[in-house]
Amino acid sequence: MELNKPPVNSLNYELLEAMHRTLVKLENEKCPGMILTSSSRSTFSAGLDLLEMYKPTVDKARRFWSMLQNTWIKLYSTPYPTVAAINGHSPAGGCLLAMSCEHRIMVPDKMIGLNETQLGIVAPQWFQDCMRNIIGERQAEKALIAGRMFTSEEALKIGLVDELATDKEDLMQKAHDFLDEQMGLPPLARSVVKVGFRKDTLSKLINGREADIKMFLDNVFQPKVQESLENYIQMLKKK
Amino acid sequence: MELNKPPVNSLNYELLEAMHRTLVKLENEKCPGMILTSSSRSTFSAGLDLLEMYKPTVDKARRFWSMLQNTWIKLYSTPYPTVAAINGHSPAGGCLLAMSCEHRIMVPDKMIGLNETQLGIVAPQWFQDCMRNIIGERQAEKALIAGRMFTSEEALKIGLVDELATDKEDLMQKAHDFLDEQMGLPPLARSVVKVGFRKDTLSKLINGREADIKMFLDNVFQPKVQESLENYIQMLKKK
Amino acid sequence: MELNKPPVNSLNYELLEAMHRTLVKLENEKCPGMILTSSSRSTFSAGLDLLEMYKPTVDKARRFWSMLQNTWIKLYSTPYPTVAAINGHSPAGGCLLAMSCEHRIMVPDKMIGLNETQLGIVAPQWFQDCMRNIIGERQAEKALIAGRMFTSEEALKIGLVDELATDKEDLMQKAHDFLDEQMGLPPLARSVVKVGFRKDTLSKLINGREADIKMFLDNVFQPKVQESLENYIQMLKKK
Repeated sequence: MELNKPPVNSLNYELLEAMHRTLVKLENEKCPGMILTSSSRSTFSAGLDLLEMYKPTVDKARRFWSMLQNTWIKLYSTPYPTVAAINGHSPAGGCLLAMSCEHRIMVPDKMIGLNETQLGIVAPQWFQDCMRNIIGERQAEKALIAGRMFTSEEALKIGLVDELATDKEDLMQKAHDFLDEQMGLPPLARSVVKVGFRKDTLSKLINGREADIKMFLDNVFQPKVQESLENYIQMLKKK
Repeated sequence: MELNKPPVNSLNYELLEAMHRTLVKLENEKCPGMILTSSSRSTFSAGLDLLEMYKPTVDKARRFWSMLQNTWIKLYSTPYPTVAAINGHSPAGGCLLAMSCEHRIMVPDKMIGLNETQLGIVAPQWFQDCMRNIIGERQAEKALIAGRMFTSEEALKIGLVDELATDKEDLMQKAHDFLDEQMGLPPLARSVVKVGFRKDTLSKLINGREADIKMFLDNVFQPKVQESLENYIQMLKKK
Repeated sequence: MELNKPPVNSLNYELLEAMHRTLVKLENEKCPGMILTSSSRSTFSAGLDLLEMYKPTVDKARRFWSMLQNTWIKLYSTPYPTVAAINGHSPAGGCLLAMSCEHRIMVPDKMIGLNETQLGIVAPQWFQDCMRNIIGERQAEKALIAGRMFTSEEALKIGLVDELATDKEDLMQKAHDFLDEQMGLPPLARSVVKVGFRKDTLSKLINGREADIKMFLDNVFQPKVQESLENYIQMLKKK
């Protein structure tokens, strides 16, 4: 699955909905394995599209967040193996997508992390849980309190990514190698173990979807958050 | 306690029952510390005896699994210090025994791990919990999804074992050194802390013994599992 | 906040009460960040004052433990960033204070750890939880079973401290650098993430304060514990 929404694969409703549709299709077609990557040269995904959060109607905001939940639940619980071929920057929601795969391979000299704190917002609990499951309690605490972005090399060192690739070709080769290895395993036992490891994190969101939406709505409609978003969007436009 | 059921210390009902009896005796006799090792040159323990699972009666299968639970509960919760002197290969149930001790020392060039996935079965939750407690969430997830076997050196690196020994003599020396250190500590405080760390994992099984037996029975009587076991047993016979 | 109760900052009721008062004041005054250190050259804090536990009345013992809980709850949950500038030995309760900050910097050649087991007592659950949150399940299990004290260098290696300083000046510089970095972050988002990470550990104590006091009282009035304390106090006097 190659994300292709120029320039930086911002996750708006349409992109999330297309991802969700693809994930349902892959599962129905007994997909043997999936590589998640991006068509952009600079960016894996820039995360949630700020325009979805800037002065939305309640209905639009609710519909957006609900689709984000849908897409993540599908991606995090696929029975088939998944690998993120991270060929560019991967902040916030982009990092979530990468963390939701089973394995992460990254090109050098890019940045990845949950940087929400730096924007004055709080990463949702399930974003935080995904990070904690991968890099452990203490590293996640430090990273999330500071909203820290890691270089590819730092991310490898703390285990946020599993491998570095030298270039895009090497990246795709390593992603295929991972899938080949996983696809050689008995698929049912493999998927039962995988989903077993992820079930607590999944259940927390699935049983708390409405509360999670409410938390997003409460946050997004705060004047301070709208102000931050406005400033940030202005800054991006100037770039 | 030296496992001595040639050739590879397969854990059948009789061996588990003998281990359980010994553990009860050691506790009653206020044992100051225990080394778990094997009389085999190649193998610490090859894990559960597949013959116990191949076309058993329901009663026999239930009795077997229940004794495995008994033995593990005793071993995992001993008040006295325990150390696994891993002098050979240690797959699946063999790895569980080693993981249930407080400290693991291993000779070089052997293999250890929970390789159930590779056989098309799912390691029981408590096997998985033991591994997670030792090597952490992420390493356990990767190891268990792939049913990965680690060399002694890899096991040391991820913390699945604590020390390597150069040979059997060095192995036993290091095991005694560990026990000497532990036996110098106030025994009551030591055991309260130990059991405190293990109580969640223990309680999960103790409160769910019947469900755990049922899961084993459901699994073992699946035609696919019986077929796998038959193939595996044939392969072992040819060796 | 500089602990200044010569010779070794033993945590008696008065010191804990003064710390608690200071923490309440700092929070009310919207303190931007706090360095916890000691005026002693040798010791950060020697931990709980054994004299508070040696033949106390029930009322005195209860009042003491309750103030320890109060102080820890305040320190562990500050909205502002906290850093421990560990300029000396830091056993038991001293280690708890250091672990309750967000970041730990330590001078070389000192010792830190929860050594309760070595004294024949059991570190309270929340002391243990703090350590587990920082160094992970397996390292905490090993450290707490043995009541192990770590040198500054060992503590850095397992992550019990985050940085080493060359001397007191370097220590304070590094502590200020940490605070500067944290104080540049949006304070509300920062504190929500921090308290989110700590809420399970906090809730466990807050919801179990009376049980925790009872456990302390049960322990402290055991003849064996009183005997140990007497021996230990005699030994300290000889020094």
